[in-house]
Amino acid sequence: MSMNTFGHLFRVTTWGESHGPALGATVDGCPPGVAIDEAMLQQWLDKRKPGQNKFTTQRREPDAVRILSGVFEGVTTGTPVQLMIENTDQRSKDYGDISEKFRPGHADITYWQKYGIRDYRGGGRSSARETAARVAAGGLARAALAELAPGLEITGYMVQMGPHGIDRANFDEAVIAGNPFWCPDATAAETWAGYLDDLRKSGDSVGAVIEVTARGVPAGLGAPIYAKLDTDLAAAAMSINAVKAVEIGEGMAAAALRGSENADEIRMGPDGPIYSSNHAGGILGGISTGQDIVLRFAVKPTSSILTSRRTITKSGEETEIITKGRHDPCVGIRAVPVGEAMVACVLLDHLLLHRGQTGGNRGRIG
Amino acid sequence: MSMNTFGHLFRVTTWGESHGPALGATVDGCPPGVAIDEAMLQQWLDKRKPGQNKFTTQRREPDAVRILSGVFEGVTTGTPVQLMIENTDQRSKDYGDISEKFRPGHADITYWQKYGIRDYRGGGRSSARETAARVAAGGLARAALAELAPGLEITGYMVQMGPHGIDRANFDEAVIAGNPFWCPDATAAETWAGYLDDLRKSGDSVGAVIEVTARGVPAGLGAPIYAKLDTDLAAAAMSINAVKAVEIGEGMAAAALRGSENADEIRMGPDGPIYSSNHAGGILGGISTGQDIVLRFAVKPTSSILTSRRTITKSGEETEIITKGRHDPCVGIRAVPVGEAMVACVLLDHLLLHRGQTGGNRGRIG
Amino acid sequence: MSMNTFGHLFRVTTWGESHGPALGATVDGCPPGVAIDEAMLQQWLDKRKPGQNKFTTQRREPDAVRILSGVFEGVTTGTPVQLMIENTDQRSKDYGDISEKFRPGHADITYWQKYGIRDYRGGGRSSARETAARVAAGGLARAALAELAPGLEITGYMVQMGPHGIDRANFDEAVIAGNPFWCPDATAAETWAGYLDDLRKSGDSVGAVIEVTARGVPAGLGAPIYAKLDTDLAAAAMSINAVKAVEIGEGMAAAALRGSENADEIRMGPDGPIYSSNHAGGILGGISTGQDIVLRFAVKPTSSILTSRRTITKSGEETEIITKGRHDPCVGIRAVPVGEAMVACVLLDHLLLHRGQTGGNRGRIG
Amino acid sequence: MSMNTFGHLFRVTTWGESHGPALGATVDGCPPGVAIDEAMLQQWLDKRKPGQNKFTTQRREPDAVRILSGVFEGVTTGTPVQLMIENTDQRSKDYGDISEKFRPGHADITYWQKYGIRDYRGGGRSSARETAARVAAGGLARAALAELAPGLEITGYMVQMGPHGIDRANFDEAVIAGNPFWCPDATAAETWAGYLDDLRKSGDSVGAVIEVTARGVPAGLGAPIYAKLDTDLAAAAMSINAVKAVEIGEGMAAAALRGSENADEIRMGPDGPIYSSNHAGGILGGISTGQDIVLRFAVKPTSSILTSRRTITKSGEETEIITKGRHDPCVGIRAVPVGEAMVACVLLDHLLLHRGQTGGNRGRIG
Repeated sequence: MSMNTFGHLFRVTTWGESHGPALGATVDGCPPGVAIDEAMLQQWLDKRKPGQNKFTTQRREPDAVRILSGVFEGVTTGTPVQLMIENTDQRSKDYGDISEKFRPGHADITYWQKYGIRDYRGGGRSSARETAARVAAGGLARAALAELAPGLEITGYMVQMGPHGIDRANFDEAVIAGNPFWCPDATAAETWAGYLDDLRKSGDSVGAVIEVTARGVPAGLGAPIYAKLDTDLAAAAMSINAVKAVEIGEGMAAAALRGSENADEIRMGPDGPIYSSNHAGGILGGISTGQDIVLRFAVKPTSSILTSRRTITKSGEETEIITKGRHDPCVGIRAVPVGEAMVACVLLDHLLLHRGQTGGNRGRIG
Repeated sequence: MSMNTFGHLFRVTTWGESHGPALGATVDGCPPGVAIDEAMLQQWLDKRKPGQNKFTTQRREPDAVRILSGVFEGVTTGTPVQLMIENTDQRSKDYGDISEKFRPGHADITYWQKYGIRDYRGGGRSSARETAARVAAGGLARAALAELAPGLEITGYMVQMGPHGIDRANFDEAVIAGNPFWCPDATAAETWAGYLDDLRKSGDSVGAVIEVTARGVPAGLGAPIYAKLDTDLAAAAMSINAVKAVEIGEGMAAAALRGSENADEIRMGPDGPIYSSNHAGGILGGISTGQDIVLRFAVKPTSSILTSRRTITKSGEETEIITKGRHDPCVGIRAVPVGEAMVACVLLDHLLLHRGQTGGNRGRIG
Repeated sequence: MSMNTFGHLFRVTTWGESHGPALGATVDGCPPGVAIDEAMLQQWLDKRKPGQNKFTTQRREPDAVRILSGVFEGVTTGTPVQLMIENTDQRSKDYGDISEKFRPGHADITYWQKYGIRDYRGGGRSSARETAARVAAGGLARAALAELAPGLEITGYMVQMGPHGIDRANFDEAVIAGNPFWCPDATAAETWAGYLDDLRKSGDSVGAVIEVTARGVPAGLGAPIYAKLDTDLAAAAMSINAVKAVEIGEGMAAAALRGSENADEIRMGPDGPIYSSNHAGGILGGISTGQDIVLRFAVKPTSSILTSRRTITKSGEETEIITKGRHDPCVGIRAVPVGEAMVACVLLDHLLLHRGQTGGNRGRIG
Repeated sequence: MSMNTFGHLFRVTTWGESHGPALGATVDGCPPGVAIDEAMLQQWLDKRKPGQNKFTTQRREPDAVRILSGVFEGVTTGTPVQLMIENTDQRSKDYGDISEKFRPGHADITYWQKYGIRDYRGGGRSSARETAARVAAGGLARAALAELAPGLEITGYMVQMGPHGIDRANFDEAVIAGNPFWCPDATAAETWAGYLDDLRKSGDSVGAVIEVTARGVPAGLGAPIYAKLDTDLAAAAMSINAVKAVEIGEGMAAAALRGSENADEIRMGPDGPIYSSNHAGGILGGISTGQDIVLRFAVKPTSSILTSRRTITKSGEETEIITKGRHDPCVGIRAVPVGEAMVACVLLDHLLLHRGQTGGNRGRIG
């Protein structure tokens, strides 16, 4: 299970299991001199933290992050930053027959086949709990971006829950933090609340679509051909648990467009090129244009549900399973801060790469 | 522009520009002892080759591949395999004002901003011509897979052209190679032919959705957390020119499903687990289940069209541009063999990784 | 300060500073199913631990290692193994003018120039304390090697202290652990004891040469051209603090030999090739031959000495410095287990690589 | 045989065999805007070219390098630069029993065991001919360094041939290019000429020590802990064919020194720190100090000699072998430009890394 690292120069390695003593992120390549402390990271972890309302798992974890290395006198030193989160809610519970049965839709069966290991304690390494470490690393990336790319802002929100989308006309960034779904459409949020409450009571779950927008991204970030900015964003999003699709800009809808509709026309503004539209989602040829970067990803519904599902055991017997426990009816909710964190890491990484490879933008316009 | 390499152990570095003397792929990590010759690679290049019918660019390139290293007495030696394709159609033409104007929807402007270079000869490195090298490398990957995973089959086809999809009820693998669109639905192919002919005559272009299915993939491939099989497939697909979205299994549609609908139930077959459905697209927790792997990606419409579009010049003057020349009305057509090639490379890479990291599957069922 | 990771498939990232809360190693890519516990790692850390006799620094650190992840029910799971060592001896002391002056021979000045950070607390990240994390990771590598390459043995020892070498005729592996210097020549060890005691009292220090021998290494390990087994061993050794030279087999002495003297002749033994000599140090063309692998490296004398040395301050003033504190008169002593650990990591890594790339040796002899 | 690439951001992948159609280097990550043409590269290849006097192999290769990609209108574009050298002297010869016998001291036997391939044509990939590609890549690195670090100079020379060293008092850089050995001591060069002529006539060969000095290297290059500047230099040197040892600064001799002798004292000069000596070889804690970087490596004697040597065949029979053909009596001679090339690549790579990770030196002195 090598390959727990992502990034080229800003390299994040996450470690730890759902019910082990701790988990965390080893962050190598953070630039020196970035002001950081635990409170600055904690704000992002608190956003992802379970148990904050009835729509997320009732597991209680303070998710308190500790900085074990790489920071001295309030700033990063350039050495690896170790971010550790202790697991406090490792309640000794009766896992019952979970250790023998594979949960449909979970990684239980593939991990078993590949590794010969059945860590039945909440999914072990494949648990979405791993994303807490990503959020911590993303917090550090944000702090570095604040210094290297002032004005850059990353905002995630949910644009679809199950069959219910948002009305873009109602989009209001101010309401995102005001509802449990990070929904930018206050009306939709109300609909979702009723919908999800019903689902939750029925013991079922539902998928979602998350969108992350990055504003103020400098033009020139990206490293074609195989480390394109959109390639790395796609990989970052797809690596998040339960994600099944990734879109940039128009995304799947681009397939239905004609060239005369899709290409964003270019005009000259006072400070450089401006575009008449943003079908591209801020990226052309793998390199940022300076427009908003728009990333969307679809999260499948949690596979842990109260409905009985047919499955097999390690010994190959056919059986059924009901996944009791503390689960999210819409795991997409907690994927919002995770998506933001991944975007922050990718942007910082490419900013460092760009600086290294070219020394910054070399071509002037006007 | 570092980062022209993909893969962990089977590493492909492509090089070359649209109108330079040659382009190719340096393939490092191909297992030794794989039977290969130029003809075996050429069959795949011929599939991608332009100018084969009126629906692809009329640029004439034989795309003849040469093996310059890494093969001795008909088999790979384990050393790097250099695959070179000479550019023969470097016609001296009048690029006119192209060298000064940026083509909307193209990488011209971002490459200029980042690198300070304007390779106006057909897009230079950002041209889709680069994908010829990927197809050559993919041919080598297929030859290796034929030995390491006999029975594994990779098939690409187009499932949507512009607004027109296929009818899954008509799906017939036998018709794929019998129409110019790699369309598995003979009826849809006829519709597409008329639609695209009209578009072509009007000087416009259109997007498409490509699907690639891999059958016979052994369970156990994939390396969580950040080199998941789906993560690497998503990156591979997104790195292809003009791709704006990637889906695995249900893809975006998973967002609208409930958990009780989405998780694939498991039964026991004579040779191991079998699944009642394949919403997962053959991957759970980043690891292959043994089911068909199903990858889809959306290609945006070619931005080179005959309609005048507003743009700017390097000196910042506002102007208009019409992209004359030999272009594809639906570049998605030629993306089909490219998608297959990328899937072949990723699967071989993960097969080698899995062998290295675990020695093969370690957990038995039954 | 990215690049705190080494290894291709068995990847070790160390983190932590001399006087921070903790340090450790994040080990990604350890094969699943390896039996391991903290006691098995502790034995190697105890070998490196300071303060065990008068010849090593009197800093008191229990160097107790904790496994925070990647192990379940006594075996590795294939997930990242986090090995943490808490720093207990962070005594609040008067660093005096150390925070302003650069210590000659130390990384103080270069870290300051590069990072703009002066972690004056015992050298921070550049302290040899970082090697405790390597030893922990090496312990894990040894446990994996015990399963994957039974019979493989790695033994380190000191062959030169200052001007005093050993007599190869006296070489006795049994005496290595019986003296404070890991010296395989009991007579030399006595000489060294007197020599070093005098040096220590005079406040001076001295260099050393360490040799590490690996027996029972299978033929076929190594990945030419740039990840040759000797290349990776050289890098591993040179990355250890204070190392200034690395030799394989004959090493520097090979320069003085003629071809007729140097090439090891080959005969056929009952189980495969045997060699008449081992000038090659067990490696030909970057690949192991099956003979003993012999690696040597030279460690410079500790630069922390009681003699006054001329230096400058951060503000550029010329001054002098005496490095008081708890230092090693011969830091080479503690480099012995570190060298062993690095060799273990490299061998395991190449064993996994070889398995992945070729599936094991493919050519038979006889 | 993956891992034919070195470098972090300036990544060089060499490919090709001794007697295949061509060999070359795929260079990814060269900064854009570097002025380069084939003649600029050819000068370095000519330095390494065989057959220039009686002391190097009489194989005749023009070693003409072609630039196939990555350069447009006389400057690098930032895309991969493909450097190809065609093999012209692939004379059809009688390899006789070479295809069955393993040459002692060569990689024949280990390549066979690992890959199951016996490329008997001059050693195939393990031939020193591969280093021609390194020299081409090094030429490109030098051109980039000329722009990014003006004043940086890299000079290689031989300091020992067999048992005969140089007298440092006679060191004269001006005489290096004036003798066939790149010897900086004119008197030694005369001794060597007689010595080597005798050896050559007797069909024997001898080892050598090469030193490469880099002047004008900015302080601050290097990326601890595992990509230290000296670590990467050691790996680069050890990856060269036949190299058995690597030294930085004092090298092995550092072991015999006391701390009071070894640490270089620091004074303040008009432009920054100056050092009273350079035992460190220009590197402290893995980071350049601004002093001359001094790297030495030992090359073993060519194993291809006219003396009969005992060996075995693929089928395990004991036999003898005499390696006829066109070989170097002292392969170290041609290792001089190779060493220079590797140093150029490493320095450029670290310059780009440093720029990316820190944006340049952050700490001021004075």
